[in-house]
Amino acid sequence: MRHIHVIGIGAGDPDYVTAQAVSALNHTQVFFAMDKGPRRGTDTDELVALRRAICERFITHAPGEPGYRFVELVDPPRATTGEYTSAVADWHAERAKIWAQAIETELGPDGVGAFLAWGDPSLYDSTLRILDRVAEHVEFDYDVIPGITAVQALTARHRIPLNDIGEPVLITTGRRLRDEGISGTAVVMLDAECSFQECPQQTRIWWGAYLGTPDEILFAGRVGEVGEQIVAARAEARERHGWIMDTYLLRSAD
Amino acid sequence: MRHIHVIGIGAGDPDYVTAQAVSALNHTQVFFAMDKGPRRGTDTDELVALRRAICERFITHAPGEPGYRFVELVDPPRATTGEYTSAVADWHAERAKIWAQAIETELGPDGVGAFLAWGDPSLYDSTLRILDRVAEHVEFDYDVIPGITAVQALTARHRIPLNDIGEPVLITTGRRLRDEGISGTAVVMLDAECSFQECPQQTRIWWGAYLGTPDEILFAGRVGEVGEQIVAARAEARERHGWIMDTYLLRSAD
Ligand SMILES: C[S@@+](CC[C@H](N)C(=O)[O-])C[C@H]1O[C@@H](n2cnc3c(N)ncnc32)[C@H](O)[C@@H]1O
Ligand SMILES: C[S@@+](CC[C@H](N)C(=O)[O-])C[C@H]1O[C@@H](n2cnc3c(N)ncnc32)[C@H](O)[C@@H]1O
Repeated sequence: MRHIHVIGIGAGDPDYVTAQAVSALNHTQVFFAMDKGPRRGTDTDELVALRRAICERFITHAPGEPGYRFVELVDPPRATTGEYTSAVADWHAERAKIWAQAIETELGPDGVGAFLAWGDPSLYDSTLRILDRVAEHVEFDYDVIPGITAVQALTARHRIPLNDIGEPVLITTGRRLRDEGISGTAVVMLDAECSFQECPQQTRIWWGAYLGTPDEILFAGRVGEVGEQIVAARAEARERHGWIMDTYLLRSAD
Repeated sequence: MRHIHVIGIGAGDPDYVTAQAVSALNHTQVFFAMDKGPRRGTDTDELVALRRAICERFITHAPGEPGYRFVELVDPPRATTGEYTSAVADWHAERAKIWAQAIETELGPDGVGAFLAWGDPSLYDSTLRILDRVAEHVEFDYDVIPGITAVQALTARHRIPLNDIGEPVLITTGRRLRDEGISGTAVVMLDAECSFQECPQQTRIWWGAYLGTPDEILFAGRVGEVGEQIVAARAEARERHGWIMDTYLLRSAD
């Protein structure tokens, strides 16, 4: 049967790749990559380049052995109107059709393909949800290989614990933080709007952008002290790079 | 200056080790290991053996190069009475003294030591908190190397997303789950009491023990359907191994 690896490649540093991922990379014939095209605020070209660099660095085919190849999957347009969750579901269904077709035509009956997921495939990533629907169209088997998330990159680079002793941690989005505010410890991802600005000034923040890469930026302090510096640094970096990835940990002061 | 690596080694499978961890392992002269002695419900011997196996497998010193060695740190007894947080703080302070002394006597002025943390060093682990206090006694520099957590091992082995689309995820403990109940998605760690039993029967659960190891056990379903099976399997496995590590993801039915 066809086999698909869903490989978490870590969220920044190519050295975040695990031994398990290296082994799966080396057993893959076809890497399926989404060609997202230009999107607001992200430069997927750089991420595609990073994925290729990881393959080049960690795949060690002996001379004469068959190599691997990349297949670009065209991304269907995403509805920008209508209810969010159903728009996402439709878009997943469209993608699933395209992926199913590619798996069928590009992989032999015992072929091995892979999708590379930024960070860990389980965290704010649609690959597993789409693959679930691909199964409606074509038969295949798959496994999931965990990767270092942006959450762990953030705490490692700041050298801080994620949780207070015995306390919980919420992983959430910028939108949710704006709606619900902060209590205890929260890690915020997918925030294009520096939503920490709405938190009490005494809230502690550990912020990081381009974590694990040579462009990494770190800030830590109270929102009231470093908040404005973060907003300015983020705008400047985003302007210069054309895109940004940032995440942060908040601990409420009470 | 003395340097300490705090290395996340992943939560189960030695193949969870990252390229960054392998590099740090290879640059370490002294591995500091806590001799926790027999503790209720865990067999640290097996975990110590696993750490050694990781070193043996991934450290590739050229013949003639100096090797590495293990230094066992005796663990101070932990107060079992009194207020929890202050008991933990006292215990960290005691440990910090022992660690400081070991760093000073076992490492030369430019020596490199390491602490190996199970999973990721940021998640329900005291190494970073103690090192913070070691700095009161001896001068050293340190870095933190992220590792695959039990959370990612759980979602990878069940091949599931951690979050619902755009939704938050709470990482919490068994005690907190009992106190606060479930809403949305929660991952529960440090639960010796199968606290999911107090959740509504319709709650979905993905449970895993000894994740990433040859002894791995997985269950998925509704609490009302698989809850009793999990309780029985957990008791049986714990009896057989003498210890258990388990974690689970819950999604409330509403
Ligand atoms: C679509 S989610 C994917 C998360 C990924 N699966 C993971 O495990 O980290 C993208 C978000 O992750 C965070 N992120 C990913 N990589 C990052 C990095 N290197 N530095 C800072 N934030 C990062 C940002 O918050 C970004 O908005
Ligand atoms: C003291 S915490 C350390 C967590 C670790 N730092 C990590 O990143 O996963 C130990 C808890 O992690 C979970 N855990 C760790 N390894 C596990 C494994 N291989 N299988 C299941 N649960 C595990 C269990 O809930 C256990 O009670």
